[in-house]
Amino acid sequence: MGELIRLALLGAGRIGRVHAVNLARHLPGAVLDCIADVDLAAAQRLAAELGVACVCADPLEALSRPEVDGVVICTSTDTHVPLVVAAAERGKHVFCEKPLALDLRGTDEALAAVARAGVKLQVGFNRRFDSGFARARELVRSGQLGRVRLVRITSRDPQPPPLHYVLASGGIFRDMTIHDFDMARFVAGQETESVFASGACLVSQEVAQAGDVDTAVVLLRFESGAMAVIDNCRHAAYGYDQRLEVFGDKGAVVVDNARSNPASLWDEAGLHQDRPPFFFLERYAQAYRDEMEAFVRCIRHDEEPPVTGADARAALVLALAAARSLQEERPVRVAEVAMG
Amino acid sequence: MGELIRLALLGAGRIGRVHAVNLARHLPGAVLDCIADVDLAAAQRLAAELGVACVCADPLEALSRPEVDGVVICTSTDTHVPLVVAAAERGKHVFCEKPLALDLRGTDEALAAVARAGVKLQVGFNRRFDSGFARARELVRSGQLGRVRLVRITSRDPQPPPLHYVLASGGIFRDMTIHDFDMARFVAGQETESVFASGACLVSQEVAQAGDVDTAVVLLRFESGAMAVIDNCRHAAYGYDQRLEVFGDKGAVVVDNARSNPASLWDEAGLHQDRPPFFFLERYAQAYRDEMEAFVRCIRHDEEPPVTGADARAALVLALAAARSLQEERPVRVAEVAMG
Amino acid sequence: MGELIRLALLGAGRIGRVHAVNLARHLPGAVLDCIADVDLAAAQRLAAELGVACVCADPLEALSRPEVDGVVICTSTDTHVPLVVAAAERGKHVFCEKPLALDLRGTDEALAAVARAGVKLQVGFNRRFDSGFARARELVRSGQLGRVRLVRITSRDPQPPPLHYVLASGGIFRDMTIHDFDMARFVAGQETESVFASGACLVSQEVAQAGDVDTAVVLLRFESGAMAVIDNCRHAAYGYDQRLEVFGDKGAVVVDNARSNPASLWDEAGLHQDRPPFFFLERYAQAYRDEMEAFVRCIRHDEEPPVTGADARAALVLALAAARSLQEERPVRVAEVAMG
Amino acid sequence: MGELIRLALLGAGRIGRVHAVNLARHLPGAVLDCIADVDLAAAQRLAAELGVACVCADPLEALSRPEVDGVVICTSTDTHVPLVVAAAERGKHVFCEKPLALDLRGTDEALAAVARAGVKLQVGFNRRFDSGFARARELVRSGQLGRVRLVRITSRDPQPPPLHYVLASGGIFRDMTIHDFDMARFVAGQETESVFASGACLVSQEVAQAGDVDTAVVLLRFESGAMAVIDNCRHAAYGYDQRLEVFGDKGAVVVDNARSNPASLWDEAGLHQDRPPFFFLERYAQAYRDEMEAFVRCIRHDEEPPVTGADARAALVLALAAARSLQEERPVRVAEVAMG
Repeated sequence: MGELIRLALLGAGRIGRVHAVNLARHLPGAVLDCIADVDLAAAQRLAAELGVACVCADPLEALSRPEVDGVVICTSTDTHVPLVVAAAERGKHVFCEKPLALDLRGTDEALAAVARAGVKLQVGFNRRFDSGFARARELVRSGQLGRVRLVRITSRDPQPPPLHYVLASGGIFRDMTIHDFDMARFVAGQETESVFASGACLVSQEVAQAGDVDTAVVLLRFESGAMAVIDNCRHAAYGYDQRLEVFGDKGAVVVDNARSNPASLWDEAGLHQDRPPFFFLERYAQAYRDEMEAFVRCIRHDEEPPVTGADARAALVLALAAARSLQEERPVRVAEVAMG
Repeated sequence: MGELIRLALLGAGRIGRVHAVNLARHLPGAVLDCIADVDLAAAQRLAAELGVACVCADPLEALSRPEVDGVVICTSTDTHVPLVVAAAERGKHVFCEKPLALDLRGTDEALAAVARAGVKLQVGFNRRFDSGFARARELVRSGQLGRVRLVRITSRDPQPPPLHYVLASGGIFRDMTIHDFDMARFVAGQETESVFASGACLVSQEVAQAGDVDTAVVLLRFESGAMAVIDNCRHAAYGYDQRLEVFGDKGAVVVDNARSNPASLWDEAGLHQDRPPFFFLERYAQAYRDEMEAFVRCIRHDEEPPVTGADARAALVLALAAARSLQEERPVRVAEVAMG
Repeated sequence: MGELIRLALLGAGRIGRVHAVNLARHLPGAVLDCIADVDLAAAQRLAAELGVACVCADPLEALSRPEVDGVVICTSTDTHVPLVVAAAERGKHVFCEKPLALDLRGTDEALAAVARAGVKLQVGFNRRFDSGFARARELVRSGQLGRVRLVRITSRDPQPPPLHYVLASGGIFRDMTIHDFDMARFVAGQETESVFASGACLVSQEVAQAGDVDTAVVLLRFESGAMAVIDNCRHAAYGYDQRLEVFGDKGAVVVDNARSNPASLWDEAGLHQDRPPFFFLERYAQAYRDEMEAFVRCIRHDEEPPVTGADARAALVLALAAARSLQEERPVRVAEVAMG
Repeated sequence: MGELIRLALLGAGRIGRVHAVNLARHLPGAVLDCIADVDLAAAQRLAAELGVACVCADPLEALSRPEVDGVVICTSTDTHVPLVVAAAERGKHVFCEKPLALDLRGTDEALAAVARAGVKLQVGFNRRFDSGFARARELVRSGQLGRVRLVRITSRDPQPPPLHYVLASGGIFRDMTIHDFDMARFVAGQETESVFASGACLVSQEVAQAGDVDTAVVLLRFESGAMAVIDNCRHAAYGYDQRLEVFGDKGAVVVDNARSNPASLWDEAGLHQDRPPFFFLERYAQAYRDEMEAFVRCIRHDEEPPVTGADARAALVLALAAARSLQEERPVRVAEVAMG
């Protein structure tokens, strides 16, 4: 297995806990060296649970530990860029949750720091590691679907986030659709030429007051003429809806929702299955494990991460284009926003 | 069952044959009285097969038979309007294949003649009668899905039509998407405010030379803020792809493709099902029967047809808006094209 | 198409009506010449509906019409043998509903008459014509499944028949399982060596008083060592359950229930489909049409029917063996009962 | 979480490794204290991988460690009874892999020792913890299916074991069907009155020389008159086939195979899914974790284990009855073999 890779976790919140547990328990080649959180008690609780000795409130303290090979950044979005820069300057490899930043300036600053330092940067587009979506990508890459004609992505949440979350999220495109922009690029293996977005507030009027939408359809046009359609909603009564289709000239791949269990009840009212796994923690448990394993492997074998800073930038560009399209009610060429 | 309804068939081609067989064999309350086709031999062959005594080359001759209650118009699109007008003027009820006309002027002329005569006009949007799509409509109408948020329609053909067909078809939106425009209105029970269309020639470059596209995505925005996304392709390697989803605040309905048979083969290479029913004649066999039955029932009971001339006009308006949107690369408000 | 085949229907009850409608409306090459029923009014109603001119109360009268090529026997089971014999003696081809007879003596009498006369006899094992089961047979025959190891057949009715029907039915094995015995032979393409049956009255105690069971499992052992398991129940709350699996050394075929429609409702309570088609008239509509078409084709082209009198006898032998096994609580060798 | 539960692993083979990894990494409340294996190198490798300090060749040494609360017995079947007895005598709680013993005498000896010592005994019927099968049990227990009428269990392996394994296995009923006997009792919540078994060598003739079968169907009759049918095969070309159906008077539950991933490929040859998860390690990964968690929880909270020694005995009785039934070609009453 080779030498252990030592990682520091910055941010002991919900997603931080997922990565910490995976590192501490499921990735034998990695060591969770240190947990930092401004809420020191939260860091301490998680560290105690996982048997991690080093805890601190200041992320820079964690970043300065010489034994640390890399960091996993799970703090609030506004701190991502300075922490990526600080980590890179200390020669630490970086895994950063999505979105890397809400603007291109910050994104480019982070990418530049990473490039200067020669460290690795992997961004948290975990869905690429989902077994179903990975299989779809493989079928495209292998040529079994032929030339891609259309990608269809459905992403709907089982319940809307609280209003304060929406207000701080940067809007649906940078918060939620960002995963789908990355997925579209990932499975199609193509770059986007223009974006058209349409949206509405059909779940909550509060969201409208925040200038955002909760239901959206985004149409991407790839440079080849192929297209992608993404539909999002902040609420779905029947649960977390995460589906994908890729349609090519030789065939299509259809990725259904995962099932909570393989049992069906048949009775007088019909045939019934349970709703899909509740939310992202359940649906993407395997994907979170595999993305962290990929990060550790990249450090160990000095390889390019499977999701790079350039991928983060490209998804952000699409989100910015979508926001402008929604605002101006017209298709927006990626070139209009890509320069920052 | 009451008195028999006597119908004349105009046009003994492929779809004419479907309606003729249904009328002659599967609808005990109807009588196929007469078959007219400019290709008299074709009319004679079909008449012989079905035991129909009256055959003629001139549709006006069929329309003038006093015993005929109604006509089923399956001739080429350019003859639809004059034949609807001629039938209405003779007091005959009219079933007309889609599209009623390729322009609003012709459509309005036909609608005016029908209104003046007080006869019934049913248009051939057969998919409304498909058991799966009808169930979807029922779930929306009953309120089980709550307020509609999104309609998703997939319609892809197993193989592209010959080029000469494409050239005469009026373009993909008036020829193929027209069914989906009607379906979107039907299941959502809402009217459209604006249309955005994107398209490409990914199947054949010949189509591009004809100024048409063979792959398209159309986004409709309903007056409520809800949306519909339609995707079309003139070719799908895995067969005729006819699916629908309607997503509301209380739930969703998902209509899968029909299966050719309920058998699956499980072997070393995986689990396999046969492709779906080949094309519209197979997939919509039940729907064609039911739409003709509905037409006969409307005449018998003097009821409003389930698909009216107004529905034909509304779908055409959406097709025209889509064509303009594709041309001008911008969302087009329905009001821009609805006046004709 | 060649000359028309003229058929007489004997018995205008429920299943007689199905065959009559198929002959009169859906099989252009056949003519329903005459309908006979001791309940003359029933025969008259059906004849009027289908435009059949000849009606009689006495089946022998129908059998004596010189223009009749064959008969479709849908009368009560106890009349099958004398009618088959009478038809054969008059040189008429015979389609007879299952069971041909409740005992081997009657069966052999009918087979002998048919053999003497050189007419064709097809027996109403309609399920062989179901698209799913036919596909299963084809996969076995083609060798794609390899050597058969196990056949599993599920057959459950949506609701139990009235007690008087059960009393006259000859017991579950000759009435209900008879279809499954035929299916096992059909898909496996093998003959049975021994039978073990187990049963219970779990639906109704009245059935027990009649000496019958309403829930049964039957295990067949083929001569090759391969096996078949059949399970039956006179009641299933979720509807008509008709499934089949064949498992071979290269793979398996799994035939699911048909769907009433391809729509699923997804809501807070889960994912829901409608129950399968109600009962045999709905589920096997296509199979009934195709078996009658096969009968007509056999007459026209002078071919061996796809389901013969020998098939009827073989299924009856299995039913008799199952009944003895249930009675004596031991596996029964087919040779013990096959001689009659 | 309370005090940590310290466990010793006896047997570092394939299944031992599964439990060891679950204890060491996935069950925070448990500590894997010691690993014993007669192949000391194997124990050392596993201990090194999991960071376990104590390793020994002699299981009695592990059993004698005062800090150990319980043992997980994964050694060869012939050692199960003496190790259970030795563990019980030392006051250690016991998890023992299935089968507890190949005969009733050994089973009863183990149960008596456990009873005398007042320790807990959980047996490795892991499938009870599978999410699909557990859901089936819950639907029966809740009354949603009504009174059980039939249980159907399919269990087929993707590939046959080596001949030497078969020879030492005690035969298919005690080795393979033993899981299904337990599942039938578990989901039905009923005891069996009689057993009828049929079997053949359809995979390999070598197995016949060993006096065993590789393909079997077993029919259980419960005391209520309800039945269960189990079918087994040592080989299935399409992969590990693990399905269950329970049919009651109010409805049924159907547990399908798990899917390797939720992607389907649609192409010219049809619609394709990947084969199910390869074998028990993959299919039952979650079940293995949950059964070990249940064992730890029972120790911590001093509760009755969910799978007891009495369950192991009952399944063995059914296996013995099945073997006698196959031998004597007759249904065997459980009372005939239950006394040992």
